[in-house]
Amino acid sequence: MAKKGEFSLIDFISTHFKVPQGMVGIGDDCAIIPDFGEDTLVSTDMLLEGIHFLRDKATPEDIGWKAAAVNLSDIAAMGGIPVATFLSIALPKDAQGEWAERFIEGYAAISKLYKVPLLGGDTTSSLRDIAINVGVKGRCDHGKALGRSGARVGDSIFVTGPLGDSGAGLKALLGNLTRNGDIDYLIEKHLRPTPRIAEGQQLLATGKVGAMMDLSDGLASDLSHILRASGVGATIELKSLPLSPQLQRVCKANRWRAADIAASAGEDYELLLTAPSEITQLVDFPLYHIGTITEGEGIVWTRAGKPTRFKKRGFTHF
Amino acid sequence: MAKKGEFSLIDFISTHFKVPQGMVGIGDDCAIIPDFGEDTLVSTDMLLEGIHFLRDKATPEDIGWKAAAVNLSDIAAMGGIPVATFLSIALPKDAQGEWAERFIEGYAAISKLYKVPLLGGDTTSSLRDIAINVGVKGRCDHGKALGRSGARVGDSIFVTGPLGDSGAGLKALLGNLTRNGDIDYLIEKHLRPTPRIAEGQQLLATGKVGAMMDLSDGLASDLSHILRASGVGATIELKSLPLSPQLQRVCKANRWRAADIAASAGEDYELLLTAPSEITQLVDFPLYHIGTITEGEGIVWTRAGKPTRFKKRGFTHF
Repeated sequence: MAKKGEFSLIDFISTHFKVPQGMVGIGDDCAIIPDFGEDTLVSTDMLLEGIHFLRDKATPEDIGWKAAAVNLSDIAAMGGIPVATFLSIALPKDAQGEWAERFIEGYAAISKLYKVPLLGGDTTSSLRDIAINVGVKGRCDHGKALGRSGARVGDSIFVTGPLGDSGAGLKALLGNLTRNGDIDYLIEKHLRPTPRIAEGQQLLATGKVGAMMDLSDGLASDLSHILRASGVGATIELKSLPLSPQLQRVCKANRWRAADIAASAGEDYELLLTAPSEITQLVDFPLYHIGTITEGEGIVWTRAGKPTRFKKRGFTHF
Repeated sequence: MAKKGEFSLIDFISTHFKVPQGMVGIGDDCAIIPDFGEDTLVSTDMLLEGIHFLRDKATPEDIGWKAAAVNLSDIAAMGGIPVATFLSIALPKDAQGEWAERFIEGYAAISKLYKVPLLGGDTTSSLRDIAINVGVKGRCDHGKALGRSGARVGDSIFVTGPLGDSGAGLKALLGNLTRNGDIDYLIEKHLRPTPRIAEGQQLLATGKVGAMMDLSDGLASDLSHILRASGVGATIELKSLPLSPQLQRVCKANRWRAADIAASAGEDYELLLTAPSEITQLVDFPLYHIGTITEGEGIVWTRAGKPTRFKKRGFTHF
C-alpha cells in the first residue's frame, strides 16, 4: 500500500516488541506465523480519506476494489495464497447509505474474482472522514514465503508488467486532463490495480526467486528496501523499464518523462523480484528484465548502458 | 469492542459474501478459520477519536492499553489463546510525536503482560482525527471455540466479575465528578479493562460451556445476541448482578441506580457465559450466577424474583 504519510513511529514500535522465535514481524510485506506445516501470512493496511483517496476522484466501487486489491497484493508479494480478509470501516453520516453499499460492491467484486471471503471486521461511524482498514490472512508452505532479504549478487531483476501507468493515471486525474481512451486506461490502472496473486504463487513454485515484493511506493523506493534487506546493490537500465503504449502516447502528448514516472511513481502493484535469468522459462507469463543485482549498495541508474543521474520525483498518492 | 456508531451495513455485507465450508464469518466475537488440527481465530476493531475516545479524557497510554485490551478480549471470549496483534494507526500532525510514543508504551505494556507480540501493521498520517485499528490472531483446538449459539434451556448464566464499573467510570469522567478513591477505581476500570484470557481458556477446558462472549455493549444488549443465536430466552435477577463496593458507594452518593448501570452499561469486558451450574467447581476463579436460560425469547428481568420492567438506558462509549 502507498506509504505516504508513514513516519518514523515504526522504529519506535520495533524497539518495544520482541518477535518470538520462528515468526517474522515488522519490515516485510506480511508478518509470518508458523503453523502446523504451513505458515500464516498476515498484512494490514489503513486508507484515509484526504490522504489515500478523495471521494470526488474515485467512485465508492473503485475505493472498495482498491482497498481489497492492495492487501491481496501483499499476499501475492510473498508468493502466498489469500485465505480471508477482514474489513474495518468508519463512516461519517453522509457516507453511511449508498456510498457504503457501493464501496462493499467494489470490495465484493474483487473478492469474488479471487475467491477470497470477507470473514469479519468492524463498522463504526466517524465524525468527518472515512477511515478504512483491511487485514488479510494468507498461507504458504512452511519457510517458503518470499521475503526481501534474499537477493544475490548476479541475480537478474524483473517486474511482472508495465510500470508507471498508475502514477500517470493519478497525474491525469489530479490535473483534470481531457479524457480519451489512453487517459481512461491509465486512470483505470490507478483506481483498479490487479494483485498478481497467481503470478506470485507460480514464482514461488519455481524455487528460483531470491527476493520479491510488490510495487506500491515505486521502483526506486521499493527496490531500495530489497537492497538494504539483502545487503547488495543494483544497476537499473531506464530504457528497459516496460512501458505501456498508452503511457508512451500520453507522456508524448503532455511532455512527461515516461521513464521517470516508471522509475518513481507508485501503486502499480506489479511484482518486483530477483532471480537467475533462466526463471523466465519456468513461468507462463512475461517477466521484464530491468537490471542486475550487484555488490555494494544503492541503485546505479543507466540509460543505454551509461550511468545517468536520476532524480526521484514525488508523486502524490491519492 | 464498543459497538457505538455501528450501523446496518453488516447485513448488507453479509449478503455479498459467502462463508466457505468449515469457516465462521461475521456474527461472533471472532472469525474462525480451520487450520491443521487447530482453528485460527481472528478479530479486528476500529477506534476513532471523537467516537470511541477523547484525547482530553484519557492518556495516550490508556488508549494504547485499551486498544489492545478490547481485541485480546475478543480472543478470550472464544476461549482462545492470543498469538499476535496487528496495529494500524492514522495520526494527525499534533499526535505524531510524543502522543504516538506514549500510545505505543500503553499498547506494549498490556502486550507484554499477556506475552502477545505485535507483528505488523500500518502507520499513516490523517488530516484531523486519530484512527486506530487493531487486529488480533488467536488459536484454539479445532472445533472447540466457544461461540454464541450453544445456550441450552436450563443452563445457568454467569459472569466473571462485577458489572457496571466501566460505565460508572465513564459517567464520572464525562460528568467531571470530584475525584476520590472510589471514583478513581471506576475510571481506571473504564480506561484499563482486563481481558479475561486465562479465565476464557479455563472455561473452554471444562467442556461445559454452552455459549460465551465478552461484555462490550452491556449485559442487556450482549445477552440478547446469545439468546437470538441460540434460539432461547433468559431470566435475569437484577439483585444477583455482582456490584463492586466502589460502584455501590458512588451510586449511593450520586443517586445513580447501580443495578441499571450493571445491566446496561458497556465495556466491562467480563465474560458472559451459559453452563450447567456445576461448572463453578471446575474453575479456580469466581463465577457469578445471574440468571437462567429459558424457553421462548428475550430477557425477563426480575427483582427479588418478581418480574420488573427494566428500561435500557443509553451510555455514551468514549
